[in-house]
Amino acid sequence: MASRFRHAALVGKYQAEGIRDVLEEIARFLIAQGLELSLERETALNTGIDRYGALTADELGRDCDLAVVVGGDGTMLGIARQLARHGTPLVGINQGRLGFITDVNLQQYAEALAPMIAGDYEEEHRTMLEGGVWRDEALIFEGFGMNDVVVSRGAAASMVELKVDIGAEFVANFRSDGLIIGSPTGSTAYALSAGGPILHPGIAGWVLVPIAPHDLSNRPIVLPDTGEIGIEIVAGREASVSFDMQSLARLQHGDRIRVRRSASQVRFLHPRGWSYYATLRRKLHWNSGVN
Amino acid sequence: MASRFRHAALVGKYQAEGIRDVLEEIARFLIAQGLELSLERETALNTGIDRYGALTADELGRDCDLAVVVGGDGTMLGIARQLARHGTPLVGINQGRLGFITDVNLQQYAEALAPMIAGDYEEEHRTMLEGGVWRDEALIFEGFGMNDVVVSRGAAASMVELKVDIGAEFVANFRSDGLIIGSPTGSTAYALSAGGPILHPGIAGWVLVPIAPHDLSNRPIVLPDTGEIGIEIVAGREASVSFDMQSLARLQHGDRIRVRRSASQVRFLHPRGWSYYATLRRKLHWNSGVN
Amino acid sequence: MASRFRHAALVGKYQAEGIRDVLEEIARFLIAQGLELSLERETALNTGIDRYGALTADELGRDCDLAVVVGGDGTMLGIARQLARHGTPLVGINQGRLGFITDVNLQQYAEALAPMIAGDYEEEHRTMLEGGVWRDEALIFEGFGMNDVVVSRGAAASMVELKVDIGAEFVANFRSDGLIIGSPTGSTAYALSAGGPILHPGIAGWVLVPIAPHDLSNRPIVLPDTGEIGIEIVAGREASVSFDMQSLARLQHGDRIRVRRSASQVRFLHPRGWSYYATLRRKLHWNSGVN
Amino acid sequence: MASRFRHAALVGKYQAEGIRDVLEEIARFLIAQGLELSLERETALNTGIDRYGALTADELGRDCDLAVVVGGDGTMLGIARQLARHGTPLVGINQGRLGFITDVNLQQYAEALAPMIAGDYEEEHRTMLEGGVWRDEALIFEGFGMNDVVVSRGAAASMVELKVDIGAEFVANFRSDGLIIGSPTGSTAYALSAGGPILHPGIAGWVLVPIAPHDLSNRPIVLPDTGEIGIEIVAGREASVSFDMQSLARLQHGDRIRVRRSASQVRFLHPRGWSYYATLRRKLHWNSGVN
Repeated sequence: MASRFRHAALVGKYQAEGIRDVLEEIARFLIAQGLELSLERETALNTGIDRYGALTADELGRDCDLAVVVGGDGTMLGIARQLARHGTPLVGINQGRLGFITDVNLQQYAEALAPMIAGDYEEEHRTMLEGGVWRDEALIFEGFGMNDVVVSRGAAASMVELKVDIGAEFVANFRSDGLIIGSPTGSTAYALSAGGPILHPGIAGWVLVPIAPHDLSNRPIVLPDTGEIGIEIVAGREASVSFDMQSLARLQHGDRIRVRRSASQVRFLHPRGWSYYATLRRKLHWNSGVN
Repeated sequence: MASRFRHAALVGKYQAEGIRDVLEEIARFLIAQGLELSLERETALNTGIDRYGALTADELGRDCDLAVVVGGDGTMLGIARQLARHGTPLVGINQGRLGFITDVNLQQYAEALAPMIAGDYEEEHRTMLEGGVWRDEALIFEGFGMNDVVVSRGAAASMVELKVDIGAEFVANFRSDGLIIGSPTGSTAYALSAGGPILHPGIAGWVLVPIAPHDLSNRPIVLPDTGEIGIEIVAGREASVSFDMQSLARLQHGDRIRVRRSASQVRFLHPRGWSYYATLRRKLHWNSGVN
Repeated sequence: MASRFRHAALVGKYQAEGIRDVLEEIARFLIAQGLELSLERETALNTGIDRYGALTADELGRDCDLAVVVGGDGTMLGIARQLARHGTPLVGINQGRLGFITDVNLQQYAEALAPMIAGDYEEEHRTMLEGGVWRDEALIFEGFGMNDVVVSRGAAASMVELKVDIGAEFVANFRSDGLIIGSPTGSTAYALSAGGPILHPGIAGWVLVPIAPHDLSNRPIVLPDTGEIGIEIVAGREASVSFDMQSLARLQHGDRIRVRRSASQVRFLHPRGWSYYATLRRKLHWNSGVN
Repeated sequence: MASRFRHAALVGKYQAEGIRDVLEEIARFLIAQGLELSLERETALNTGIDRYGALTADELGRDCDLAVVVGGDGTMLGIARQLARHGTPLVGINQGRLGFITDVNLQQYAEALAPMIAGDYEEEHRTMLEGGVWRDEALIFEGFGMNDVVVSRGAAASMVELKVDIGAEFVANFRSDGLIIGSPTGSTAYALSAGGPILHPGIAGWVLVPIAPHDLSNRPIVLPDTGEIGIEIVAGREASVSFDMQSLARLQHGDRIRVRRSASQVRFLHPRGWSYYATLRRKLHWNSGVN
């Protein structure tokens, strides 16, 4: 059967136990499917698999038309961020319990991947957040993320006060442990723990979730993702900001964080019949028992 | 100054004390602004103001190019529903505390309305929900609303089980006191009390909020408003459904409620400088004190 | 080994499939343990087990010093309410998934019960709620419950307004779908779904939980169980009240519900090593996975 | 009228604007009521009021039988902690908006205090939390508080995992931003922001509130205050603990925090007719408007 793809990138959570054998097997499978194959450089270095070319994430983005990722949601988010500007589609294989975005079970990877490689899959796009931190007139930090931008109080501080605007329109001042701007993808991560709603990936919005807000009526708000969101540190010591995993600590009063939708989107491929809601039901244990 | 509008409809919460004098004054003002004027029929009948033509809501929709509504959010929602399919824009004057959508203060109505009538205003569109109830193959109820569609358990029943799908895709079964499908307009009404997020009117989605769900991880979900939502009564006695104020009681197992975005939208006009977020801050008492 | 108990009552969820064989086996086991045995009358009638004496709940309470209950939490709550004034201790055997208060697994019932019958068990007491409804000067309803007293709006009504006092001190007016007064036992039932906290059975208090309160700062309150709680229907149509399963519908404005701690307590016996927190962890799926 | 008290301590929030004049006036009033008067040392030093004796908090606790505190809840909590072991009763005068525990308005202080000094008041007791941090076998920190003990993740860390036991019984492992153990007094402070219930001061319990818990069913639990609570740092970087305002940063894995009810209680005096619920209604803006 003719492959729809030509050159696959293979990326693995190289710290995981037994990952080398798993990657070797999947590599052979991909080649047997008629694909050219390159390993992500860190994956190759850390597992010692040197039979295939080892490329950096950027080189993979340039050369490959499919990324096969073996690991959990964290591994997937990490490489997805790096490949986003290249538009490389990703499929995630999970060794353990299925994740929100890694939905091919390692036990059935061959049955799942074969038709996908032949072009039979469901494609889904996820928005990304990008932005930075301005101090006085200078841009002192740039970030990029799939899940969320989080501004938090310092460990010893009792509270942070944040002034939020969107598209130059004042929203409110929030006094809380912090604020989360979550994408639909991030809405099932930290934002959910902090009391936010789930946002279907088809929603063109962010959810703004105050963390332990002082004002009990400061509820989560879903905002259009068309306007740029600004957050200014008004009060509170040692606040920090993070875009997914990248953090800037010791924010100062007057520092301004700007967040906007990135021009890049992540492309996820799922097996035919994949359902976003089935993932929710499984991950959140809905309808899991009679009790 | 030339008026942008030609023929105003005047609608009032006729049960309110002192409303007759208020309506008389606003009527004179509108005529002095060069507008033709008609009163909504129920308003005319109940206040005894018979100097101007009295038209049904439908006739107002056909003849008028502006509706001036004096009352609270409830009055506004009621007439907005009726005018929606005509596309008549509405402006709301509030006698008491400002509402979410009635944002012209009676004390300043003249200063606020004069520039609006001259064409200087901010226009905002709100989506509407429509749908019905099917029993076996028959459509037994049709409804239409601005705020929400609510399915509730019967008074004596302990719980209702509802099966939800969207665009033919299964979402989940929910066991709870009921479910709310809220529009952005309705997200600050009942859905907020039940734990839902606020949806900015620019969000093309509904929020699905389970009421007191048995399963603690059944959290509010924001869904695209492009697909039709179906809710089937699976278990529970004496469930009912309501589209804003219109209700159907004694739903039976197997009854199916379908909800979709209406082709009609409500057009609200606001004074220049109006801010959705300012309304939120005021209505939800954000930043209201030092404590 | 000498039995600490003399005469056991056996009660079963007689609607459950296969219950007759299960009850027959447990009956033989209890007799083999040296106990006199009586069946609860409804259980005997509905299963056709007529070999042992059949007594009403009240007669069981008078004659027996141990009640063995086979079923789920609902079965247990039902008989516990009836036996409470006699002080008969109960032990619950669960056929399916363990409940909050039925914690002996049917598969291991013999190993679990034998030492308990010999006097080796953990005893735990649970408070009960009792009260009634007053209309004008008349007591029109009396109720008694282990879980909660719930006042709810009518099915078609939009809201109920309830005035709450405790020990003659005014607490607040609540506008909501209703109010739950939950005991520690009830705190893991409906009150939890409505947003209430878990109350350890050792807490001498009730939790008052407003259901979908209009006022976002109307949060659950834990009140001492020493004062009598009063709830007056101020506004709203067709409100109802229920004490566990017993309901009174069509409450009128001015009706007053009074709730106090009953002088009776339920005595639950658990196998040695039983842990309240282990039950919470299991029932609420805490720490259930890595995700 | 004979005074019930003999020797008053006067304590002020000395940073507040205009406090010197206020304190001078209240000092004269207290002396005119026949009381001996001493100023708290920091208050005297910072305001320059040197006409009365200046004593440390401990000396005040030893010599005085009444403490009059001028400031907000923070000032009151600070001095209450220091006086607790002496059993000195406190009354709080608030310059600005009334607090949860400072309920005499500065404008009416004379009318409110005169009868109280004569012995006509309501007395209320509040429990206190005390405990410490153990590393290996050493006690490395001791703390004492009226509101809460808070264990938090480090600023840059994504989560902390905490193992909780009470009275040597395992409760659960919590993965979250942290945990709050709140007293009834603290239940209306940070614990409320994090989703906890309100605990009436008559409840002999603590509320354990997980902050942004990873597991959605990790709900607040109210625990008896008779058992010692232990919290062990299982995972997470740079966790910290604070007892009210006193903090210990950089906790290590294996560090154990122990919290128990202090033998000391705080005694608050309120004007006759004071109501705990009236304070809740005012501070939480219950029933504040029609909307």
